[in-house]
Amino acid sequence: MSSPSELDRLRVVLVSARNPLNIGAAARAMSNFGFARLRVVTPFAAAFREARSAVGASSVLADAEEFASVSDAVADCSLVVGTTAVRDRQLQHTLRRLEDGARLIRKRLRSGRVALLFGSEKFGLSNEALSHCHWLLRIPTSERNISMNLGQAGAVCLYELIRDTKAARPTEKSILASAAEIERITFMLLDSLRESGFLSRRRVADADQRIRRLVRRLHLQQRDAVIWLGIFRQILWKLRSAEKT
Amino acid sequence: MSSPSELDRLRVVLVSARNPLNIGAAARAMSNFGFARLRVVTPFAAAFREARSAVGASSVLADAEEFASVSDAVADCSLVVGTTAVRDRQLQHTLRRLEDGARLIRKRLRSGRVALLFGSEKFGLSNEALSHCHWLLRIPTSERNISMNLGQAGAVCLYELIRDTKAARPTEKSILASAAEIERITFMLLDSLRESGFLSRRRVADADQRIRRLVRRLHLQQRDAVIWLGIFRQILWKLRSAEKT
Repeated sequence: MSSPSELDRLRVVLVSARNPLNIGAAARAMSNFGFARLRVVTPFAAAFREARSAVGASSVLADAEEFASVSDAVADCSLVVGTTAVRDRQLQHTLRRLEDGARLIRKRLRSGRVALLFGSEKFGLSNEALSHCHWLLRIPTSERNISMNLGQAGAVCLYELIRDTKAARPTEKSILASAAEIERITFMLLDSLRESGFLSRRRVADADQRIRRLVRRLHLQQRDAVIWLGIFRQILWKLRSAEKT
Repeated sequence: MSSPSELDRLRVVLVSARNPLNIGAAARAMSNFGFARLRVVTPFAAAFREARSAVGASSVLADAEEFASVSDAVADCSLVVGTTAVRDRQLQHTLRRLEDGARLIRKRLRSGRVALLFGSEKFGLSNEALSHCHWLLRIPTSERNISMNLGQAGAVCLYELIRDTKAARPTEKSILASAAEIERITFMLLDSLRESGFLSRRRVADADQRIRRLVRRLHLQQRDAVIWLGIFRQILWKLRSAEKT
């Protein structure tokens, strides 16, 4: 996971965006994942105005910078990456899957600014815009529908940038019940089964062991073990008091 | 990365969705990442109708199944996972980060169906809906803005499910120029520097070695080496022919 100062070195650049909802969605995804620097290149003026004035428009949009050309928008960046849905266009660029490309972007963000370019929803990035890119990124979409909505593509790319590789391993472990607690439950259950006549109706030599294994397969959490113990205690009490009357 | 049959075991369940654009966006993300089975629980009737009839509405939406309760919608699934933005609610559930949770979902999809629940944009999943879940998933959003748009949250979760861990390593390697090609360029460059007077103006003992290292730091690709060789050959020819006249 990148540090806040590293995230602050990313410039999300929307080129010729036409849809105010999509501009707003891109800004929202940036805010969700901790990125703040949005740049827009020759957006459709009305669309940009509408996006900025929308209810709930973020500070990301308010602070967005406007540029007249891709060249100006990426001038202070040491790595320029374009996004594309296309796989087999006659690209003069190296094409990287998002998982791999994001790794390289993260690396570069440690020391310098990186521009991540998104084209218009309809036409993607123009060849002129692409010529400013060092390489291209593609999201591994299904062959059947490669074209993503701008806001969703932005969200996925930014998520991959802040994704924590280490978090893919279990983090929030539940506390499992101890063997003693499990054994108390087993006793209580066995008593209940005896009292209820369950065990006398199904006579097997190793009944206790079967029940013991059965309880262990529940992988009970500590907090649940307490509850189960209470449940069987209550059942057992009821069974025994019913017997006496 | 999961196989198509594994992806087909996922049920994306939208509970009380209110916004036709978001229902459509969720369906689009499913289509982008190769998922087909959408379920909706008591959606706002008008919103669902509008989403279904929207231009470009996918087959995912056309095939969506409608249910009267969460219980019915998840009945055939062996794992039920809820999504939430909340971190510190008095949750009775284990809360997992997306990176970790997706790993467990993928594992379960190998053998059975998994339901992934999304709540309404405004209120999230109700406590009743949450009570059907085995555990909860949260997208690692920034503390400052944890609330994601439904379509974007869906896209990010589904992307993580199809994400290819192995692809995070370089796949499409560029072919680097051979040492011989690099050396030819170095010779051509050195000759050009001599002819241009560059080297005589900056006299250092190890000029050749400095230039040699300079060229190597370019990490030239094979296809580019050919071009650079042509460029310096041309420059050298011009320098020499200018000298003769």
